[in-house]
Amino acid sequence: MVTSIQDTLEGNTQVAPHAVELVEALRGTELFAALSTEILEGIAAHSRIIEVAGDTILYRQDDPTDSLYVLLEGRLAGFSVAANGTTAVIEVIQRGETLGLAAVLARQPRLMGVRTVHGSRLLRIEANDLLALLEREPALVTAMLVAEANEFRALVRQVCDLKLRTTAQRLGCYLLSLSTEHRANTAALRLPFDKRLLAARLGCRQENLSRAFAALRSFGVETHGARVILHDIAGLRAYAQPDEAAA
Amino acid sequence: MVTSIQDTLEGNTQVAPHAVELVEALRGTELFAALSTEILEGIAAHSRIIEVAGDTILYRQDDPTDSLYVLLEGRLAGFSVAANGTTAVIEVIQRGETLGLAAVLARQPRLMGVRTVHGSRLLRIEANDLLALLEREPALVTAMLVAEANEFRALVRQVCDLKLRTTAQRLGCYLLSLSTEHRANTAALRLPFDKRLLAARLGCRQENLSRAFAALRSFGVETHGARVILHDIAGLRAYAQPDEAAA
Repeated sequence: MVTSIQDTLEGNTQVAPHAVELVEALRGTELFAALSTEILEGIAAHSRIIEVAGDTILYRQDDPTDSLYVLLEGRLAGFSVAANGTTAVIEVIQRGETLGLAAVLARQPRLMGVRTVHGSRLLRIEANDLLALLEREPALVTAMLVAEANEFRALVRQVCDLKLRTTAQRLGCYLLSLSTEHRANTAALRLPFDKRLLAARLGCRQENLSRAFAALRSFGVETHGARVILHDIAGLRAYAQPDEAAA
Repeated sequence: MVTSIQDTLEGNTQVAPHAVELVEALRGTELFAALSTEILEGIAAHSRIIEVAGDTILYRQDDPTDSLYVLLEGRLAGFSVAANGTTAVIEVIQRGETLGLAAVLARQPRLMGVRTVHGSRLLRIEANDLLALLEREPALVTAMLVAEANEFRALVRQVCDLKLRTTAQRLGCYLLSLSTEHRANTAALRLPFDKRLLAARLGCRQENLSRAFAALRSFGVETHGARVILHDIAGLRAYAQPDEAAA
Protein backbone atom coordinates (compact mmCIF):
# COMPACT_ATOMS: atom_id res chain seq x y z
CA MET A 1 0.00 0.00 0.00
CA VAL A 2 1.31 3.41 -0.89
CA THR A 3 0.74 5.93 1.90
CA SER A 4 1.18 9.67 1.59
CA ILE A 5 3.84 11.74 3.28
CA GLN A 6 1.10 13.86 4.84
CA ASP A 7 0.05 10.92 7.02
CA THR A 8 3.66 10.53 8.02
CA LEU A 9 4.29 14.18 8.80
CA GLU A 10 1.18 14.29 10.92
CA GLY A 11 1.98 10.99 12.60
CA ASN A 12 4.47 10.14 15.26
CA THR A 13 7.48 9.39 13.08
CA GLN A 14 9.16 12.77 13.23
CA VAL A 15 12.42 12.94 15.13
CA ALA A 16 13.59 16.28 16.51
CA PRO A 17 17.29 15.94 17.15
CA HIS A 18 19.52 18.51 18.69
CA ALA A 19 21.05 21.03 16.27
CA VAL A 20 24.47 19.39 16.66
CA GLU A 21 23.08 16.10 15.37
CA LEU A 22 21.52 17.88 12.39
CA VAL A 23 24.82 19.57 11.55
CA GLU A 24 26.58 16.19 11.69
CA ALA A 25 23.90 14.63 9.47
CA LEU A 26 24.35 17.46 6.95
CA ARG A 27 28.14 17.10 7.07
CA GLY A 28 27.77 13.37 6.38
CA THR A 29 26.17 14.03 2.96
CA GLU A 30 28.21 14.47 -0.19
CA LEU A 31 26.24 17.61 -1.02
CA PHE A 32 27.16 19.54 2.12
CA ALA A 33 30.37 17.77 3.23
CA ALA A 34 32.74 20.56 2.24
CA LEU A 35 30.82 23.47 3.77
CA SER A 36 31.79 25.40 6.90
CA THR A 37 30.12 24.68 10.24
CA GLU A 38 28.62 28.15 10.13
CA ILE A 39 26.84 27.47 6.84
CA LEU A 40 25.75 24.02 8.06
CA GLU A 41 24.25 25.60 11.18
CA GLY A 42 22.36 27.98 8.94
CA ILE A 43 20.92 25.07 6.97
CA ALA A 44 20.24 23.02 10.13
CA ALA A 45 18.02 25.81 11.44
CA HIS A 46 15.66 25.11 8.54
CA SER A 47 16.02 21.33 8.47
CA ARG A 48 14.59 18.37 10.24
CA ILE A 49 15.14 14.66 10.10
CA ILE A 50 12.11 12.56 9.24
CA GLU A 51 11.59 8.82 9.19
CA VAL A 52 9.25 7.54 6.55
CA ALA A 53 7.82 4.04 6.11
CA GLY A 54 8.40 2.05 2.94
CA ASP A 55 6.24 2.64 -0.15
CA THR A 56 5.28 6.16 0.90
CA ILE A 57 4.97 8.98 -1.62
CA LEU A 58 7.04 12.02 -0.61
CA TYR A 59 5.71 14.08 -3.47
CA ARG A 60 4.27 13.79 -6.96
CA GLN A 61 5.24 15.33 -10.28
CA ASP A 62 3.91 18.91 -10.57
CA ASP A 63 3.54 19.33 -6.79
CA PRO A 64 4.90 22.65 -5.49
CA THR A 65 8.56 22.31 -4.54
CA ASP A 66 8.54 23.17 -0.87
CA SER A 67 11.58 21.24 0.30
CA LEU A 68 14.83 19.52 -0.60
CA TYR A 69 15.27 15.94 0.61
CA VAL A 70 18.62 14.29 1.18
CA LEU A 71 18.51 10.54 1.81
CA LEU A 72 20.34 9.53 5.01
CA GLU A 73 19.28 5.87 5.21
CA GLY A 74 17.05 3.72 3.05
CA ARG A 75 16.18 3.92 -0.60
CA LEU A 76 13.98 6.13 -2.81
CA ALA A 77 12.51 5.76 -6.28
CA GLY A 78 12.02 8.75 -8.57
CA PHE A 79 9.03 8.12 -10.81
CA SER A 80 7.07 9.70 -13.60
CA VAL A 81 3.50 8.94 -14.63
CA ALA A 82 2.67 8.88 -18.35
CA ALA A 83 -0.55 10.23 -19.84
CA ASN A 84 -2.13 6.75 -19.82
CA GLY A 85 -1.41 6.26 -16.12
CA THR A 86 1.56 3.89 -16.42
CA THR A 87 4.48 4.67 -14.12
CA ALA A 88 8.17 4.62 -15.03
CA VAL A 89 10.83 4.44 -12.35
CA ILE A 90 13.28 7.06 -13.52
CA GLU A 91 15.97 6.56 -10.93
CA VAL A 92 16.65 4.65 -7.71
CA ILE A 93 18.25 6.92 -5.14
CA GLN A 94 20.81 5.56 -2.70
CA ARG A 95 21.82 6.89 0.68
CA GLY A 96 23.65 10.22 0.55
CA GLU A 97 22.10 11.21 -2.78
CA THR A 98 19.77 14.10 -3.53
CA LEU A 99 16.85 14.19 -5.89
CA GLY A 100 15.06 17.18 -7.31
CA LEU A 101 17.67 19.92 -7.04
CA ALA A 102 16.77 21.32 -10.46
CA ALA A 103 13.22 22.10 -9.36
CA VAL A 104 14.35 23.56 -6.01
CA LEU A 105 16.93 25.85 -7.59
CA ALA A 106 14.62 26.99 -10.39
CA ARG A 107 11.67 27.40 -7.99
CA GLN A 108 9.59 25.22 -10.28
CA PRO A 109 7.09 22.44 -9.56
CA ARG A 110 8.51 18.95 -9.04
CA LEU A 111 9.88 17.41 -12.25
CA MET A 112 9.13 13.87 -11.07
CA GLY A 113 7.54 12.12 -8.11
CA VAL A 114 9.49 10.42 -5.33
CA ARG A 115 8.49 7.56 -3.05
CA THR A 116 10.35 5.48 -0.49
CA VAL A 117 11.21 1.90 -1.42
CA HIS A 118 12.12 0.77 2.09
CA GLY A 119 11.67 2.65 5.34
CA SER A 120 13.95 5.67 5.02
CA ARG A 121 15.54 8.39 7.09
CA LEU A 122 15.68 11.76 5.33
CA LEU A 123 16.83 15.28 5.82
CA ARG A 124 14.07 17.68 4.86
CA ILE A 125 15.21 21.25 4.22
CA GLU A 126 12.70 24.03 3.64
CA ALA A 127 13.21 25.18 0.05
CA ASN A 128 12.49 28.88 0.62
CA ASP A 129 14.91 29.11 3.53
CA LEU A 130 17.57 27.23 1.60
CA LEU A 131 17.15 29.60 -1.37
CA ALA A 132 17.45 32.60 0.95
CA LEU A 133 20.69 31.15 2.35
CA LEU A 134 22.00 30.63 -1.19
CA GLU A 135 21.88 34.35 -1.82
CA ARG A 136 24.34 34.93 1.00
CA GLU A 137 26.61 31.90 0.63
CA PRO A 138 28.48 31.44 -2.67
CA ALA A 139 30.06 28.18 -1.37
CA LEU A 140 26.58 26.73 -0.95
CA VAL A 141 25.63 27.78 -4.48
CA THR A 142 28.67 25.96 -5.84
CA ALA A 143 27.91 22.78 -3.87
CA MET A 144 24.32 22.71 -5.08
CA LEU A 145 25.16 23.36 -8.72
CA VAL A 146 27.76 20.57 -8.70
CA ALA A 147 25.22 18.19 -7.14
CA GLU A 148 22.68 19.21 -9.77
CA ALA A 149 25.22 18.53 -12.53
CA ASN A 150 25.76 15.07 -11.01
CA GLU A 151 22.02 14.38 -11.13
CA PHE A 152 22.06 15.55 -14.74
CA ARG A 153 25.03 13.32 -15.59
CA ALA A 154 23.26 10.29 -14.11
CA LEU A 155 20.26 10.95 -16.38
CA VAL A 156 22.45 11.40 -19.47
CA ARG A 157 24.20 8.11 -18.68
CA GLN A 158 20.85 6.43 -18.31
CA VAL A 159 19.52 7.72 -21.65
CA CYS A 160 22.72 6.47 -23.25
CA ASP A 161 22.28 3.12 -21.52
CA LEU A 162 18.67 2.77 -22.68
CA LYS A 163 19.59 3.62 -26.26
CA LEU A 164 22.74 1.58 -26.70
CA ARG A 165 22.29 -1.57 -24.62
CA THR A 166 19.90 -4.52 -24.63
CA THR A 167 17.96 -5.32 -21.44
CA ALA A 168 20.38 -8.19 -20.68
CA GLN A 169 23.37 -5.85 -21.08
CA ARG A 170 21.71 -3.25 -18.85
CA LEU A 171 21.07 -5.91 -16.24
CA GLY A 172 24.71 -7.03 -16.55
CA CYS A 173 25.92 -3.45 -16.03
CA TYR A 174 23.68 -3.12 -13.01
CA LEU A 175 24.93 -6.36 -11.43
CA LEU A 176 28.54 -5.30 -12.07
CA SER A 177 27.83 -1.96 -10.36
CA LEU A 178 26.68 -3.86 -7.25
CA SER A 179 29.88 -5.88 -7.09
CA THR A 180 32.52 -4.37 -4.83
CA GLU A 181 35.07 -6.94 -5.96
CA HIS A 182 37.33 -5.05 -8.30
CA ARG A 183 40.08 -7.66 -8.61
CA ALA A 184 38.60 -11.13 -8.27
CA ASN A 185 36.69 -12.71 -11.14
CA THR A 186 33.82 -13.89 -8.95
CA ALA A 187 31.45 -12.11 -6.56
CA ALA A 188 28.40 -12.92 -4.48
CA LEU A 189 25.86 -10.16 -4.06
CA ARG A 190 22.31 -9.48 -3.06
CA LEU A 191 19.79 -7.49 -5.11
CA PRO A 192 19.01 -4.42 -3.01
CA PHE A 193 15.38 -4.26 -4.13
CA ASP A 194 12.75 -6.56 -5.56
CA LYS A 195 12.56 -7.65 -9.17
CA ARG A 196 9.49 -5.55 -9.90
CA LEU A 197 11.41 -2.38 -9.07
CA LEU A 198 14.50 -3.67 -10.84
CA ALA A 199 12.47 -4.23 -14.02
CA ALA A 200 10.99 -0.73 -13.71
CA ARG A 201 14.46 0.78 -13.20
CA LEU A 202 15.86 -1.10 -16.20
CA GLY A 203 12.84 -0.13 -18.30
CA CYS A 204 11.49 -3.60 -19.13
CA ARG A 205 8.59 -5.85 -18.23
CA GLN A 206 9.11 -8.42 -15.49
CA GLU A 207 9.01 -11.28 -17.98
CA ASN A 208 11.78 -9.60 -19.97
CA LEU A 209 13.81 -9.31 -16.78
CA SER A 210 13.50 -13.07 -16.31
CA ARG A 211 14.63 -13.57 -19.91
CA ALA A 212 17.56 -11.21 -19.30
CA PHE A 213 18.64 -13.20 -16.23
CA ALA A 214 18.39 -16.37 -18.31
CA ALA A 215 20.52 -14.80 -21.07
CA LEU A 216 23.18 -13.86 -18.52
CA ARG A 217 23.55 -17.49 -17.40
CA SER A 218 25.93 -17.98 -20.34
CA PHE A 219 28.08 -15.28 -18.78
CA GLY A 220 28.30 -16.97 -15.40
CA VAL A 221 25.39 -15.25 -13.64
CA GLU A 222 23.67 -17.58 -11.15
CA THR A 223 20.56 -16.43 -9.24
CA HIS A 224 18.70 -17.74 -6.22
CA GLY A 225 15.95 -15.22 -5.49
CA ALA A 226 17.66 -12.03 -4.41
CA ARG A 227 21.08 -13.72 -4.12
CA VAL A 228 23.24 -13.45 -7.24
CA ILE A 229 26.62 -15.02 -7.88
CA LEU A 230 28.85 -13.72 -10.65
CA HIS A 231 31.20 -16.53 -11.69
CA ASP A 232 32.95 -14.71 -14.53
CA ILE A 233 33.16 -10.97 -14.02
CA ALA A 234 35.57 -10.52 -16.94
CA GLY A 235 33.19 -12.33 -19.29
CA LEU A 236 30.19 -10.36 -18.04
CA ARG A 237 32.10 -7.09 -18.47
CA ALA A 238 33.02 -8.02 -22.04
CA TYR A 239 29.35 -8.73 -22.78
CA ALA A 240 27.61 -5.87 -20.96
CA GLN A 241 30.25 -3.21 -21.69
CA PRO A 242 29.75 -0.98 -18.65
CA ASP A 243 30.92 2.60 -18.91
CA GLU A 244 34.28 2.83 -17.22
CA ALA A 245 33.20 6.15 -15.75
CA ALA A 246 30.20 4.51 -14.10
CA ALA A 247 32.26 1.76 -12.43
CA MET B 1 32.71 14.04 -42.66
CA VAL B 2 32.81 15.40 -39.16
CA THR B 3 34.99 18.48 -38.87
CA SER B 4 36.10 20.10 -35.65
CA ILE B 5 35.00 23.47 -34.36
CA GLN B 6 38.66 24.54 -34.16
CA ASP B 7 38.87 24.49 -37.96
CA THR B 8 35.75 26.62 -38.00
CA LEU B 9 36.87 29.12 -35.39
CA GLU B 10 40.15 29.55 -37.21
CA GLY B 11 38.42 29.72 -40.56
CA ASN B 12 36.50 32.49 -42.17
CA THR B 13 33.04 31.72 -40.89
CA GLN B 14 32.99 34.02 -37.92
CA VAL B 15 30.68 36.98 -38.10
CA ALA B 16 31.32 40.02 -35.89
CA PRO B 17 28.06 41.90 -35.73
CA HIS B 18 27.48 45.19 -34.05
CA ALA B 19 26.68 45.01 -30.31
CA VAL B 20 23.07 46.03 -31.05
CA GLU B 21 22.63 42.98 -33.25
CA LEU B 22 24.04 40.76 -30.51
CA VAL B 23 21.65 42.22 -27.96
CA GLU B 24 18.75 41.56 -30.34
CA ALA B 25 19.92 38.00 -30.91
CA LEU B 26 20.12 37.44 -27.14
CA ARG B 27 16.68 38.94 -26.64
CA GLY B 28 15.31 36.58 -29.29
CA THR B 29 16.20 33.51 -27.21
CA GLU B 30 13.87 32.05 -24.62
CA LEU B 31 16.71 31.95 -22.11
CA PHE B 32 17.42 35.68 -22.14
CA ALA B 33 14.13 37.11 -23.43
CA ALA B 34 12.96 38.57 -20.11
CA LEU B 35 16.21 40.25 -19.10
CA SER B 36 16.86 44.01 -19.10
CA THR B 37 18.79 45.64 -21.94
CA GLU B 38 21.53 46.47 -19.47
CA ILE B 39 22.09 42.81 -18.57
CA LEU B 40 21.88 41.81 -22.24
CA GLU B 41 24.56 44.36 -23.09
CA GLY B 42 26.72 42.85 -20.36
CA ILE B 43 26.32 39.40 -21.91
CA ALA B 44 26.79 40.72 -25.45
CA ALA B 45 30.20 42.07 -24.48
CA HIS B 46 31.34 38.48 -23.97
CA SER B 47 29.43 36.88 -26.83
CA ARG B 48 29.87 36.39 -30.50
CA ILE B 49 27.82 34.87 -33.26
CA ILE B 50 29.42 32.01 -35.13
CA GLU B 51 28.31 30.10 -38.18
CA VAL B 52 29.23 26.46 -38.25
CA ALA B 53 28.93 23.97 -41.10
CA GLY B 54 26.86 20.80 -40.78
CA ASP B 55 28.31 17.72 -39.06
CA THR B 56 30.87 19.71 -37.07
CA ILE B 57 31.71 18.81 -33.50
CA LEU B 58 31.40 21.82 -31.19
CA TYR B 59 32.78 19.91 -28.23
CA ARG B 60 33.12 16.41 -26.82
CA GLN B 61 32.15 14.87 -23.52
CA ASP B 62 34.75 15.68 -20.81
CA ASP B 63 36.10 18.71 -22.69
CA PRO B 64 36.58 21.77 -20.48
CA THR B 65 33.43 23.89 -20.43
CA ASP B 66 34.66 27.18 -21.82
CA SER B 67 31.43 28.52 -23.32
CA LEU B 68 27.67 28.40 -23.46
CA TYR B 69 26.06 27.95 -26.86
CA VAL B 70 22.56 29.06 -27.73
CA LEU B 71 21.24 27.86 -31.08
CA LEU B 72 19.94 30.72 -33.26
CA GLU B 73 19.42 28.83 -36.52
CA GLY B 74 19.98 25.22 -37.54
CA ARG B 75 20.01 22.04 -35.51
CA LEU B 76 22.36 20.37 -33.03
CA ALA B 77 22.69 16.82 -31.71
CA GLY B 78 23.86 16.13 -28.17
CA PHE B 79 25.70 12.81 -28.09
CA SER B 80 27.44 10.50 -25.70
CA VAL B 81 30.05 7.87 -26.55
CA ALA B 82 29.91 4.53 -24.70
CA ALA B 83 32.98 2.60 -23.52
CA ASN B 84 32.92 0.44 -26.66
CA GLY B 85 32.92 3.46 -28.98
CA THR B 86 29.24 3.41 -29.99
CA THR B 87 27.51 6.78 -30.00
CA ALA B 88 24.05 7.58 -28.68
CA VAL B 89 22.24 10.72 -29.73
CA ILE B 90 20.90 11.97 -26.42
CA GLU B 91 18.93 14.92 -27.67
CA VAL B 92 18.26 16.91 -30.82
CA ILE B 93 18.40 20.62 -30.11
CA GLN B 94 16.14 23.02 -31.96
CA ARG B 95 16.55 26.71 -32.58
CA GLY B 96 16.32 28.84 -29.45
CA GLU B 97 17.32 25.99 -27.14
CA THR B 98 20.40 25.70 -24.97
CA LEU B 99 22.46 22.64 -24.22
CA GLY B 100 24.97 22.12 -21.47
CA LEU B 101 23.85 24.63 -18.85
CA ALA B 102 24.45 22.15 -16.00
CA ALA B 103 28.16 21.92 -16.82
CA VAL B 104 28.52 25.69 -17.30
CA LEU B 105 26.85 26.52 -13.99
CA ALA B 106 28.73 23.85 -12.04
CA ARG B 107 32.06 24.71 -13.75
CA GLN B 108 32.45 21.06 -14.66
CA PRO B 109 33.65 19.36 -17.85
CA ARG B 110 31.07 18.81 -20.61
CA LEU B 111 28.48 16.16 -19.70
CA MET B 112 27.93 15.23 -23.35
CA GLY B 113 29.29 16.13 -26.77
CA VAL B 114 27.51 18.40 -29.24
CA ARG B 115 27.70 18.51 -33.02
CA THR B 116 25.80 20.41 -35.66
CA VAL B 117 23.35 18.45 -37.79
CA HIS B 118 22.88 21.12 -40.45
CA GLY B 119 24.79 24.32 -40.90
CA SER B 120 23.96 26.37 -37.82
CA ARG B 121 24.17 29.87 -36.43
CA LEU B 122 25.04 30.02 -32.75
CA LEU B 123 25.61 32.45 -29.96
CA ARG B 124 28.79 31.58 -28.15
CA ILE B 125 29.14 33.15 -24.70
CA GLU B 126 32.37 32.87 -22.72
CA ALA B 127 31.58 30.73 -19.67
CA ASN B 128 33.88 32.54 -17.22
CA ASP B 129 32.52 35.95 -18.14
CA LEU B 130 28.95 34.69 -17.92
CA LEU B 131 29.61 33.20 -14.47
CA ALA B 132 31.12 36.51 -13.33
CA LEU B 133 27.99 38.33 -14.55
CA LEU B 134 25.81 35.83 -12.66
CA GLU B 135 27.32 36.93 -9.38
CA ARG B 136 26.04 40.44 -9.96
CA GLU B 137 22.71 39.74 -11.63
CA PRO B 138 20.10 37.71 -9.71
CA ALA B 139 17.67 37.94 -12.65
CA LEU B 140 20.23 36.19 -14.84
CA VAL B 141 20.69 33.46 -12.23
CA THR B 142 16.95 32.84 -12.21
CA ALA B 143 16.76 32.69 -16.00
CA MET B 144 19.61 30.20 -16.23
CA LEU B 145 18.30 27.94 -13.46
CA VAL B 146 14.87 27.81 -15.08
CA ALA B 147 16.47 26.93 -18.43
CA GLU B 148 18.53 24.23 -16.73
CA ALA B 149 15.39 22.79 -15.12
CA ASN B 150 13.84 22.70 -18.60
CA GLU B 151 16.81 20.74 -19.94
CA PHE B 152 16.43 18.42 -16.99
CA ARG B 153 12.71 17.98 -17.58
CA ALA B 154 13.35 17.06 -21.23
CA LEU B 155 15.73 14.30 -20.12
CA VAL B 156 13.30 12.96 -17.52
CA ARG B 157 10.58 12.87 -20.16
CA GLN B 158 12.90 11.02 -22.49
CA VAL B 159 13.84 8.39 -19.89
CA CYS B 160 10.14 7.90 -19.26
CA ASP B 161 9.54 7.60 -23.00
CA LEU B 162 12.29 5.02 -23.44
CA LYS B 163 11.01 2.93 -20.54
CA LEU B 164 7.29 3.00 -21.20
CA ARG B 165 6.87 3.09 -24.97
CA THR B 166 7.73 0.79 -27.85
CA THR B 167 9.83 2.14 -30.73
CA ALA B 168 6.69 2.48 -32.88
CA GLN B 169 4.95 4.46 -30.13
CA ARG B 170 8.01 6.69 -29.68
CA LEU B 171 8.07 7.32 -33.42
CA GLY B 172 4.34 8.10 -33.31
CA CYS B 173 4.88 10.61 -30.49
CA TYR B 174 7.69 12.19 -32.43
CA LEU B 175 5.61 12.54 -35.61
CA LEU B 176 2.73 14.02 -33.58
CA SER B 177 5.15 16.54 -32.05
CA LEU B 178 6.09 17.69 -35.58
CA SER B 179 2.49 18.31 -36.53
CA THR B 180 1.34 21.85 -35.97
CA GLU B 181 -2.24 20.89 -36.77
CA HIS B 182 -4.01 20.81 -33.46
CA ARG B 183 -7.56 20.59 -34.74
CA ALA B 184 -7.62 18.71 -38.02
CA ASN B 185 -7.27 14.94 -38.11
CA THR B 186 -4.74 14.96 -40.94
CA ALA B 187 -1.37 16.64 -41.41
CA ALA B 188 1.46 16.65 -43.94
CA LEU B 189 4.93 17.14 -42.56
CA ARG B 190 8.57 16.73 -43.39
CA LEU B 191 11.13 14.92 -41.24
CA PRO B 192 13.59 17.61 -40.16
CA PHE B 193 16.57 15.28 -40.23
CA ASP B 194 17.60 12.03 -41.85
CA LYS B 195 16.46 8.59 -40.73
CA ARG B 196 19.88 7.67 -39.36
CA LEU B 197 19.70 10.53 -36.87
CA LEU B 198 16.02 9.85 -36.20
CA ALA B 199 16.85 6.22 -35.31
CA ALA B 200 19.68 7.40 -33.04
CA ARG B 201 17.38 9.90 -31.34
CA LEU B 202 14.66 7.29 -30.81
CA GLY B 203 17.22 4.79 -29.55
CA CYS B 204 16.79 2.05 -32.15
CA ARG B 205 18.60 0.53 -35.10
CA GLN B 206 17.72 1.79 -38.58
CA GLU B 207 16.01 -1.51 -39.46
CA ASN B 208 13.83 -1.17 -36.37
CA LEU B 209 12.91 2.34 -37.47
CA SER B 210 11.72 0.92 -40.81
CA ARG B 211 9.68 -1.68 -38.91
CA ALA B 212 8.22 1.08 -36.72
CA PHE B 213 7.17 3.10 -39.78
CA ALA B 214 5.59 -0.08 -41.18
CA ALA B 215 3.73 -0.66 -37.90
CA LEU B 216 2.38 2.90 -37.99
CA ARG B 217 0.81 2.34 -41.43
CA SER B 218 -2.19 0.78 -39.61
CA PHE B 219 -2.58 4.12 -37.85
CA GLY B 220 -2.69 6.15 -41.04
CA VAL B 221 0.99 7.10 -41.33
CA GLU B 222 2.12 7.32 -44.96
CA THR B 223 5.76 8.04 -45.83
CA HIS B 224 7.56 9.08 -49.01
CA GLY B 225 11.19 9.59 -48.02
CA ALA B 226 11.27 12.60 -45.71
CA ARG B 227 7.62 13.48 -46.45
CA VAL B 228 5.12 12.06 -44.00
CA ILE B 229 1.34 12.27 -44.10
CA LEU B 230 -0.72 11.60 -40.99
CA HIS B 231 -4.19 10.51 -42.12
CA ASP B 232 -5.63 9.79 -38.67
CA ILE B 233 -4.14 11.94 -35.95
CA ALA B 234 -6.73 10.83 -33.40
CA GLY B 235 -5.95 7.14 -34.05
CA LEU B 236 -2.22 7.77 -33.90
CA ARG B 237 -2.63 9.64 -30.61
CA ALA B 238 -4.65 6.80 -29.11
CA TYR B 239 -1.92 4.35 -30.10
CA ALA B 240 1.23 6.33 -29.25
CA GLN B 241 -0.16 8.00 -26.10
CA PRO B 242 1.91 11.19 -26.20
CA ASP B 243 2.35 13.06 -22.90
CA GLU B 244 -0.11 15.92 -22.95
CA ALA B 245 2.55 18.11 -21.37
CA ALA B 246 4.89 17.43 -24.27
CA ALA B 247 2.34 18.44 -26.92
